[in-house]
Amino acid sequence: IWMDFGKNTPQRPGGLKQCFVSALLYCTGEMQQLHTHMQDKFFPLQLVEGCLRGISRVILLNNPLSGALILAALLLESPWQALLGMLGLLASTFTAIILGQDCEEVSSGLYGFNGMLVALLMGVFSSAGDWYLWLLLPVCLGGAATTFLSSSLAPVLDRWDLPVSVFPFNTVLLLYLVCTGTSNPFFPNHPAQPPGAPESINHTQLHVPQLLQGVVLGVGQIFACGTVGPSLLILVAVFLFSPILAVYALLGSGISTIAGLSMSVQHSFLYSGLSGFNGALGCMVVGVFYILSWRTHLLSIANALLSAYTDIALSNLLGVLGLPASSWAATLTGTLVLLLTGKNLKEYRIPTGKVTSPEQNLHSHKQWSAANTNATDV
Amino acid sequence: IWMDFGKNTPQRPGGLKQCFVSALLYCTGEMQQLHTHMQDKFFPLQLVEGCLRGISRVILLNNPLSGALILAALLLESPWQALLGMLGLLASTFTAIILGQDCEEVSSGLYGFNGMLVALLMGVFSSAGDWYLWLLLPVCLGGAATTFLSSSLAPVLDRWDLPVSVFPFNTVLLLYLVCTGTSNPFFPNHPAQPPGAPESINHTQLHVPQLLQGVVLGVGQIFACGTVGPSLLILVAVFLFSPILAVYALLGSGISTIAGLSMSVQHSFLYSGLSGFNGALGCMVVGVFYILSWRTHLLSIANALLSAYTDIALSNLLGVLGLPASSWAATLTGTLVLLLTGKNLKEYRIPTGKVTSPEQNLHSHKQWSAANTNATDV
Amino acid sequence: IWMDFGKNTPQRPGGLKQCFVSALLYCTGEMQQLHTHMQDKFFPLQLVEGCLRGISRVILLNNPLSGALILAALLLESPWQALLGMLGLLASTFTAIILGQDCEEVSSGLYGFNGMLVALLMGVFSSAGDWYLWLLLPVCLGGAATTFLSSSLAPVLDRWDLPVSVFPFNTVLLLYLVCTGTSNPFFPNHPAQPPGAPESINHTQLHVPQLLQGVVLGVGQIFACGTVGPSLLILVAVFLFSPILAVYALLGSGISTIAGLSMSVQHSFLYSGLSGFNGALGCMVVGVFYILSWRTHLLSIANALLSAYTDIALSNLLGVLGLPASSWAATLTGTLVLLLTGKNLKEYRIPTGKVTSPEQNLHSHKQWSAANTNATDV
Repeated sequence: IWMDFGKNTPQRPGGLKQCFVSALLYCTGEMQQLHTHMQDKFFPLQLVEGCLRGISRVILLNNPLSGALILAALLLESPWQALLGMLGLLASTFTAIILGQDCEEVSSGLYGFNGMLVALLMGVFSSAGDWYLWLLLPVCLGGAATTFLSSSLAPVLDRWDLPVSVFPFNTVLLLYLVCTGTSNPFFPNHPAQPPGAPESINHTQLHVPQLLQGVVLGVGQIFACGTVGPSLLILVAVFLFSPILAVYALLGSGISTIAGLSMSVQHSFLYSGLSGFNGALGCMVVGVFYILSWRTHLLSIANALLSAYTDIALSNLLGVLGLPASSWAATLTGTLVLLLTGKNLKEYRIPTGKVTSPEQNLHSHKQWSAANTNATDV
Repeated sequence: IWMDFGKNTPQRPGGLKQCFVSALLYCTGEMQQLHTHMQDKFFPLQLVEGCLRGISRVILLNNPLSGALILAALLLESPWQALLGMLGLLASTFTAIILGQDCEEVSSGLYGFNGMLVALLMGVFSSAGDWYLWLLLPVCLGGAATTFLSSSLAPVLDRWDLPVSVFPFNTVLLLYLVCTGTSNPFFPNHPAQPPGAPESINHTQLHVPQLLQGVVLGVGQIFACGTVGPSLLILVAVFLFSPILAVYALLGSGISTIAGLSMSVQHSFLYSGLSGFNGALGCMVVGVFYILSWRTHLLSIANALLSAYTDIALSNLLGVLGLPASSWAATLTGTLVLLLTGKNLKEYRIPTGKVTSPEQNLHSHKQWSAANTNATDV
Repeated sequence: IWMDFGKNTPQRPGGLKQCFVSALLYCTGEMQQLHTHMQDKFFPLQLVEGCLRGISRVILLNNPLSGALILAALLLESPWQALLGMLGLLASTFTAIILGQDCEEVSSGLYGFNGMLVALLMGVFSSAGDWYLWLLLPVCLGGAATTFLSSSLAPVLDRWDLPVSVFPFNTVLLLYLVCTGTSNPFFPNHPAQPPGAPESINHTQLHVPQLLQGVVLGVGQIFACGTVGPSLLILVAVFLFSPILAVYALLGSGISTIAGLSMSVQHSFLYSGLSGFNGALGCMVVGVFYILSWRTHLLSIANALLSAYTDIALSNLLGVLGLPASSWAATLTGTLVLLLTGKNLKEYRIPTGKVTSPEQNLHSHKQWSAANTNATDV
């Protein structure tokens, strides 16, 4: 499609705008057209599409182009970690194929994102330096383990119509870090610092521009990116799938940073975006699983707050043992938010199997409401 | 009712006794009459009734007058903490109304007691002193968070006909204490001491009167009351709802204290009632959810023991990090006891939705049994 | 049966071989014949059979003769601990009878093995020395507590057709050890060492014969046996029930030892079999709950690996507090493996209620498949 688009541009400057719009429309949202288009194509191409979707699934998207943008961001951040991530993604996807998981689920990237995150974070926490090739071994094993966990947790969580989300990633990462520790002769790791460590008396003044930068970095930290460029690229990837989600990501990261300030966590946590990413995820979960309205908007803010405070608590708790809380907080509060029973919210909840982009959810909800009103009129 | 009763007393000394008895009958048990009476009344009065029921729910009662007595006990213990408790109660009740939870459940106090307990304990653990007004902020947030958790846990636990009980309180309190810690500049907390700390070599002789006082204080410690007066008032509140439960509360606290002795916990834990309240709750849970018989009586003793030992274990475990085990033990063992599948006990189990006072349970069970026998005779 | 067999031997040397074969066939597998034979017999004999089956249940067998062999191994290892184990077994079995659990389940040993394991391990961790009679008290209480937990967890796990397995044992043991600690005046315990402790720099060369011995000891360590003789006897007991399971036990222990090597755990852990027993259990779980095929064979190896690494992680984590990970790892990964949803494995999964020995599973699966093929032919 991009090829065609490139070819056509010079000839027809008038059609350029129209062509651009239609290409944009094609590329945004779920790109369902590409997915159906791909089903006749041969296996490697399908695999590439599935993997790219898998990358975007980490941040609650479902769009291969967003996945490609995020991959570019990761390569920009660190080629070694991007390689590890891709290996973990492939390991978990192939394990899913071997286990005989549902083809449709595999090709939409549902079994890849946990493996990718585990691999990325293994690389981030490894203190053996880049291009330490022995790390490929645990990355493959860890990726495979996430698929085992995904496959096992699915029937349990399915009883309450809950997604598996990143529970496998969080579990496997924690087990790996506890298993190896900081002084393992083969796979040594950096210890994680608790955000509210007693030695963190903040003598220095708060630096507002750095704080605002931390809000943007919070979106990048979902993929363990701590620099501005890749974080902005990831934000663009989110924007491509859904502009609403991009706003929610920034909003959640901002709320989370304020929550961090209120608990006076170390300034380095605020500046690096580490205190922002759980809030961003918490806010986005509501955006994805609930139809947009002012009620669910308030819910997303509440969940971002809850997620942020839970993250500080878990980070303090696990930090005692030198372990990171990764995205446990957002995963737990996100799961709880999907279980809410209040009737003011329940009507806005989208069944897990029917989740698409917020814009499309809103659209189909309006259509459905209109149809419903007409039906009751007659 | 109390007003009428007051007016009539001087005129008719003969009717006094009768009037007193009918007033007592009216005030004991669930006070279902008042509840139906209230449904036509305007909102603030309903709210007051709901809140008072909510206070009594903490200790497994459902009686607004018991709630008022407990509130008086809390005011006697510490006006500041009573204020915090009421604020937490209101915060969680209003959150339930905003979320659109079932009206009947809200007005019977089901969404208030967790918020109240969190607020009370936040006040107890705060090392910033009384009337530290910044504490009102986390109290409101914590109260709201318990309602979120209650609403989310309900559909999960409902699958096995289990009540939400005080899981939200325990979770939110633990997260708050881990989040803030002992050296937070805004919300510092006292650390909790593990009961079996190595430094606790008990040189001193055991003081039996203090031990007996500790048994009574164990009932008060359910509301974090460490003095005799309020504890006795709380016991009276329990007695008003159900004399059987009052006996169970003392029995459980006593068993729990013996369990504490057998594990040689620090004497201060025994004297302050801290080692008694989980046993009291564990014993009362069986009294409320099972029809009274000698089998369930043995079960209540077994559960009090189990609850007491679990509490010592969890207190030791969490005490390493300076955290309290609050009522985790009673909540967990209480939940397990409601799941028991043995046929000797299952017939005595009351479905969660039909739980009233033990006396009324016993009464309706007898009626039901008699009706059943008659039916089979014909 | 053994009596008859003994009487007949001297007279007819020709019939000896035949008699021996039929006796062997009678004794292997589930010994269902004996079980049906026993149902008319009086209660104590049934109880003995149930208890012996209970002993064998620990290691996923269901054969009273295997139970007797294991009991012999325990007596050989330490008469005191064997006594404790038997007491725990009786305590939990009688609690199950009192609670009114299903008779068939009690007599097949389902409510005994958790109590036995708890009692055994209480003896192993006690630092008060052998024949410290006060220990009989917690052993009885602990045994009873496991039955409570088994009875409560059954309806929860049953929703996903999962067995209770040794969750109650692991929970009660952990609570007991946390409750008493290392300096309790009545029930002091040895602290557990984490396998990857920082001080464990392995200066010495690896000793291969000791390593191989550790693989055999890994099977014995399921019953906390650290010497070769009893471990071999336990292996014979497994072989009697199912030769396939015996191979799986050794295979799992071997894989687990390799996993331990890859994480460079302390050599003492490898030599003592402590790093092997979770892998052995993990491997055997797949052997018991899945029909043997090359796919499930790979799964058993994968699960042994997963179980071994999880055990190292949990041992490191709990070792910080001086607590052992016992068989948490094998129990958790075993439960996850039974939940796997992939269609390549699901067809091999045996429903929990229909599990027998791997040989019989294979046999009945073949018959069933053949019958199915015939049915579709017609």
